[in-house]
Amino acid sequence: MKANENQMRTLWFDANEQRLNIIDQTLLPHELRTMTLDSLDAVCDAIVGMKVRGAPLIGITAAFGVWLALRADPDNLVPACRRLLTTRPTAVNLQWALNRVETGVAALPSAERASAALMLAQQLLAEDAASCSAIGDHGLGILDRLLALKRQTHGDDAVLNILTHCNAGWLATGAWGTALAPIYKAHMAGMPVHVWVDETRPRNQGASLTVWELGRSGVPHTLIVDNAGGHLMQHGMVDICLVGSDRTTARGDVCNKIGTYLKALAAFDNNVPFYAALPASTIDFDCIDGIREIPIEERDGDEIRQVQGCIGASVHDSDSAASAGSVVRMNIAPPGTQVSNFGFDVTPARLVTGIITEHGVVPASTEGLATIRALL
Amino acid sequence: MKANENQMRTLWFDANEQRLNIIDQTLLPHELRTMTLDSLDAVCDAIVGMKVRGAPLIGITAAFGVWLALRADPDNLVPACRRLLTTRPTAVNLQWALNRVETGVAALPSAERASAALMLAQQLLAEDAASCSAIGDHGLGILDRLLALKRQTHGDDAVLNILTHCNAGWLATGAWGTALAPIYKAHMAGMPVHVWVDETRPRNQGASLTVWELGRSGVPHTLIVDNAGGHLMQHGMVDICLVGSDRTTARGDVCNKIGTYLKALAAFDNNVPFYAALPASTIDFDCIDGIREIPIEERDGDEIRQVQGCIGASVHDSDSAASAGSVVRMNIAPPGTQVSNFGFDVTPARLVTGIITEHGVVPASTEGLATIRALL
Repeated sequence: MKANENQMRTLWFDANEQRLNIIDQTLLPHELRTMTLDSLDAVCDAIVGMKVRGAPLIGITAAFGVWLALRADPDNLVPACRRLLTTRPTAVNLQWALNRVETGVAALPSAERASAALMLAQQLLAEDAASCSAIGDHGLGILDRLLALKRQTHGDDAVLNILTHCNAGWLATGAWGTALAPIYKAHMAGMPVHVWVDETRPRNQGASLTVWELGRSGVPHTLIVDNAGGHLMQHGMVDICLVGSDRTTARGDVCNKIGTYLKALAAFDNNVPFYAALPASTIDFDCIDGIREIPIEERDGDEIRQVQGCIGASVHDSDSAASAGSVVRMNIAPPGTQVSNFGFDVTPARLVTGIITEHGVVPASTEGLATIRALL
Repeated sequence: MKANENQMRTLWFDANEQRLNIIDQTLLPHELRTMTLDSLDAVCDAIVGMKVRGAPLIGITAAFGVWLALRADPDNLVPACRRLLTTRPTAVNLQWALNRVETGVAALPSAERASAALMLAQQLLAEDAASCSAIGDHGLGILDRLLALKRQTHGDDAVLNILTHCNAGWLATGAWGTALAPIYKAHMAGMPVHVWVDETRPRNQGASLTVWELGRSGVPHTLIVDNAGGHLMQHGMVDICLVGSDRTTARGDVCNKIGTYLKALAAFDNNVPFYAALPASTIDFDCIDGIREIPIEERDGDEIRQVQGCIGASVHDSDSAASAGSVVRMNIAPPGTQVSNFGFDVTPARLVTGIITEHGVVPASTEGLATIRALL
């Protein structure tokens, strides 16, 4: 990140105003708009509507949501946590963060709960930023070794090509990101990296968020459709896949944005290393078989029937008065088309080269994950 | 197809008016507009701009293009064929159809060339329609057996779930389609089928063409994003993958719309049969290793940076005067984003269960393809 980007956060607490502020991610990359979340309702809406998204970030946001709920009604702890928990079913950070806040304030007198919840939420935010920085450092080691290896066959001008899916950057976390953290660290260290960015239908987090993030920091990148990664890997154009995770099981199955599994298959088929980067809070040690056990969120079909964008030139209606720059949704399928919109899929551990956490890199196996558990 | 759809063609020759007419596929599903192609220029523009697309159809269209070129200038045979050949580099039907017309008319006196070319083009069209019907019949046998098998475990109410990528329906051929032909035949025979339709970014042929085709014929279908197929296959929700092909090699490597390879990997990983359906004219017996030998078309980056659709409700510009129903393009990525836009990928034969042709179903192997060659 450039110096000025180091200051930018996707969520921050304004201590003077006692306000929780966020970037409204639904308008990026067309508009950078910030907003204040001032109630439990506002927080739930922001999570459901994906104004904030990304496993670590929704956990943090939910923790601040408990504070806002308790500020309005100190006796609302349990219902508030229950309601926040239902906003997104797949990511385990939500449950983890809510547990931490609930456990931390439940025994306190009503009058002290709100401020204790706020303190815990701020602590979660700071911890996540630190975890992501550590993930970046550990991942950097992997990139370093891969580049050294590539230089042996491709010479000193070799560029390391990294494929990522969805957005696992600073927009999805307290800072740095998970999958993007090693990339930012590498870029800052002067390593020649280039990122293939999957657009990530249906919500296009790659095209709208990852491209925007990387562009602001000057990290070389190329946007591709979700269909392209296999072809690139067949032709030696990808050196490593780096993705985030919404929930990782005790044996190393990685649940992440829908389509991740397809990239892992292609990586495996072409001997491309495939890593998931995640804070340990994303690991669900109670879950073994990700395919059978993790609930997969099904979202509104309009996410598929429609696409959001910014109006450019009109195709055959050149007198359209829609002003250039309007953010609009449009239909790409016939009206009423039946759709199915699963938000996540599970990549079995056998396809995952390793798991990068703030505690280090481990194999995607029961033994590997157990070494992380021992540290918690 | 319903009775009235049986009459509908994506390209037809009006003998009374001596005109070549097509459906402009770039406006579907929002508008069904037909147009006349009256010159070599118009034919080249239609192929390059994908007003007509699909391997069989571009071969047929190019053949009519030779007629139009010769009608304007009977001595223009070689340059016209050369120009038509460059419109799309990946599909082999273009080369095959042009060879047939060029060979058929080259020895004729100038005055007879145009009418001979027209006759050959019409013959290609009729042959393709017949081939696709035969592909449908052969593919129907596969669907029949799979459904019988599924009924043994799922009971008599079992529905056969077929996943397809891109559009390999009647819009892509003389009639019936390739991958969709067995589905239409099954539906007409009263077999309970349901089709998962990949939207097929960047040009969304699934969302805009396949959904439209299937909808018109009443075939049950569900639109999904390209990312979703792996998850569906992991969960037993796909019984067979059926795709078309733009070029198939002598050993059974299948070149098709970008993203096909990812679905084949997922099918293989989950023991889902994966078939490519294609007329024998799509087989390139001079090509062995599809990954190394087939030229993959790279198209304009705006296909990725932008999406075309029909304007519905505006997001935060509700006073926008863009009328509902305008077909427009909009930007989904930051302006100037670097993109890479490969149009096709190659699925290695080892992932392909079988090749369905008008001559029957063969294994995707040198031996299997050789049996087809022996019939030509």
